[in-house]
Amino acid sequence: MKVQNKHYETVWLEELGSTVIVKMINQPLLPHHFEIITLEHHTQTAQAISTMIVRGAGAIGATGAYGMAQAAYEASSENFLQYIEAAKFTLQNTRPTAQNLFYGTEFVFKNIISTYKTTEDIDLVRRNSIIAARTVAKEDAQACEQIGIYGETLIEENFRISTHCNAGWLAFVDWGSAMSPVYKAQRSGKHPFVFVDETKPRGQGARLTAWELSQEGVQHAVIADNATGHFMYHREIDMVIVGADRIAMNGDVANKIGTYTSALAAKANGIPFYVAAPTATIDPDCPSGSNIPIEERSADEVCYTWGWSDKGQFMRVRTTPIESQARNPAFDVTPAELITAIITEKGIVKPNQISSVAPVG
Amino acid sequence: MKVQNKHYETVWLEELGSTVIVKMINQPLLPHHFEIITLEHHTQTAQAISTMIVRGAGAIGATGAYGMAQAAYEASSENFLQYIEAAKFTLQNTRPTAQNLFYGTEFVFKNIISTYKTTEDIDLVRRNSIIAARTVAKEDAQACEQIGIYGETLIEENFRISTHCNAGWLAFVDWGSAMSPVYKAQRSGKHPFVFVDETKPRGQGARLTAWELSQEGVQHAVIADNATGHFMYHREIDMVIVGADRIAMNGDVANKIGTYTSALAAKANGIPFYVAAPTATIDPDCPSGSNIPIEERSADEVCYTWGWSDKGQFMRVRTTPIESQARNPAFDVTPAELITAIITEKGIVKPNQISSVAPVG
Repeated sequence: MKVQNKHYETVWLEELGSTVIVKMINQPLLPHHFEIITLEHHTQTAQAISTMIVRGAGAIGATGAYGMAQAAYEASSENFLQYIEAAKFTLQNTRPTAQNLFYGTEFVFKNIISTYKTTEDIDLVRRNSIIAARTVAKEDAQACEQIGIYGETLIEENFRISTHCNAGWLAFVDWGSAMSPVYKAQRSGKHPFVFVDETKPRGQGARLTAWELSQEGVQHAVIADNATGHFMYHREIDMVIVGADRIAMNGDVANKIGTYTSALAAKANGIPFYVAAPTATIDPDCPSGSNIPIEERSADEVCYTWGWSDKGQFMRVRTTPIESQARNPAFDVTPAELITAIITEKGIVKPNQISSVAPVG
Repeated sequence: MKVQNKHYETVWLEELGSTVIVKMINQPLLPHHFEIITLEHHTQTAQAISTMIVRGAGAIGATGAYGMAQAAYEASSENFLQYIEAAKFTLQNTRPTAQNLFYGTEFVFKNIISTYKTTEDIDLVRRNSIIAARTVAKEDAQACEQIGIYGETLIEENFRISTHCNAGWLAFVDWGSAMSPVYKAQRSGKHPFVFVDETKPRGQGARLTAWELSQEGVQHAVIADNATGHFMYHREIDMVIVGADRIAMNGDVANKIGTYTSALAAKANGIPFYVAAPTATIDPDCPSGSNIPIEERSADEVCYTWGWSDKGQFMRVRTTPIESQARNPAFDVTPAELITAIITEKGIVKPNQISSVAPVG
C-alpha cells in the first residue's frame, strides 16, 4: 500500500550475489519515523520477529519464509539439512501463537527437502527456496486483496467501522485482512470512517493502523480501548472488523488481547462482528480455542509506553510504580458464538463452517 | 491511609496563626514522586482543583470546603460576605460538573452565613468555618470506612478482585470507595489480590491505584484494560468492585470510561460486579443513565502518555500520528441490569433499590 504516495510491501527479499537479504519496514518506529531495516542473516531475521520489528500474522509468515531461504543460502553442503532444521527451529520459536509463522516456514522447509532429495545441485535447492518464499508472500498479498473484495460487499456508504490492533497491510505483505475491505470501500467512494482502538499495551492501533489510514486518506479517530463499548452503546459504530492470529476448527478465534471484550460489547449491542483472515490462519490441528497457547509477554510492555518526546526523541516513559507487578497476556480467544462471520479469500463463512475453507491438516 | 508507613489523608487543613493553609498530595507526580503541596490562599486551592493536583469525588468536595474556610480567614470584616460569595463562585467553577464540590462548598458557606447572622465576632465565624470544613472531610472518610466494613463481607479469603480507574483513598479523604473493602480485607488477613486496570487514557489505575496498593502492601498486578475480559474468561477474577461518578435513581451508574465493557465481561462470565460509592454520589434529580451528560475531554489525553523517563524526568510521549484525530469520552454509563449490587455507607443495595438510600432531592 501507499507510504508518502509510493507503493511498499511490509517485508521483501533481495538477492545480493551469493546471499539473500531481507528488508522490512521498522515498525516500532512508526508512525513518527519511516525506516527500512536490512537483515543479512536468518538469525537476524528471527530476531526481528521476536523483537517485533515485524509483527502481524501474514507479515511474520512471509518473514519466516524469507528467513528459511536465507538459511538455504547460508548452509554449507556438508551439513545442509541439519542447518536447515536448526534454522526452522529458530524461526518458529520466535512467536508461539502465530499460525502463519508455522505455515510460512514449513512451506519453504518442505520445498527445500523435496528439491534436495531430487538433485545434488545445492544452488538449485537455494534458488527454489527463494521461489517458494516469494510464493508465500505473494499468496498472502493476493489472499488479502481477495478478502478486501469479499469484505467490501458488507460495507455500506458512510459506515463507521471499529477495528482492534493492526490488521492492516503492515500485518501482512500487502492490503491487510481487517483493513483490506476498508481500503476497497475507500477506493469505491463509500467514505468509510474507522474507530481505531489504541490497543494497549503496545498501541498497534494508535501507532500503526492510524498511520496506515492516514497514508491512504481514510477518515478515522483513535480512541482508548475503554471507549469502544461506549460508542457501540450510542450507535456510533455500524460494524466491527478485526483480524486473527489463529482460527480453531470450531470457529473460535485467537487475536490481540481485547478482541474478546470488543466482541462481547458488539453482541450486547446487536452490532455485526466480523473476523477477516486468510485461510492460512486456520489451524486444522486445533479443535477449539482452548487448545491455543496464549503468549504472556514482558511486564515492561504494560509498565512503559514508547513514543516520541516533544523534542522528537523516541523514548519510553514509565507509568506504573516500580514496586508493582504486571500481567501481560498478548492474545485472547473470542468464542465462535460471538462472531457474525469470517471473511477469507475463499469467501465469507459462518464460524461453524470454517472447516469448509480450512487447509488440509 | 499509609504512605511509607505513615498515615496521610489526601488533603487537610492547618491553622497557622491568623491564616489557614491547605495541604494536599500532588497527585500528577504519583507514583514516582511523593510530594505535599501547600496552598496559602483559597484561589491557589481552587487552581489545585482545576488543574487536577487533587481529583476524585470526595477529595475535591473536602478541598472545596477547606477553600471556603481559607476565604473566611482572608476576608476583612468590611466586605466579609461579598468576599465569601466570590470565593464560593471561584471554587465551584473549577470543575462545574462535580457534585461533591457543590456539597462541600455549600456546607461551609451555609455555616458561615448562619454563624455570621448570630454574632458580631468574625473570629468565631472563622473558627466555626474550620469546624464545618473538617466535618465535610470527616464525614467523607467515615462514609468510606463504613463502605469498607460492609464491602468486606463480600470478600472471601484469597479473592482476586478486578477494579477500574482510581476509586481508592486518593479519590476521597481516606479509605476510598471501591478499594476500602479491599483494605479492610487486607487488614483482616484475607490476602486479597487486585487486578488493576491501567485505565487509559489517563492511566489512573496504573499510576494511582497501583501506588496505593503498593503502599498498603496489597498484592496486585497492573493489566492493560484489554486484558480484563481474558482474565474473567479464565476464572482468574472472583469479583469486580468499581467506584462511581454519578448514580441515577434507576440504578444506572456513570463511571470512568471502560466500566461498561468491564461490566459486560463480568456478566458474560457470571462474575459479580459491585459499585461502591457514598450515597452523596446518588443524584436524586437524575432518573436514568441517559440523563447523565458525558464529558468529552481533550484529544491530547489519547494522543500523549505522561510518565517518567529513564532519566527521572516527568514528561509526555506521543504515540499517534500527527495527522490522526482522536475521540475522548471520559465516562460511560453501566446499565443497572449489569450491576450485582451497590455498596454504600448505609448498606449494600440492589441497583433498583438505590432510592432507599438516596439523599432527598
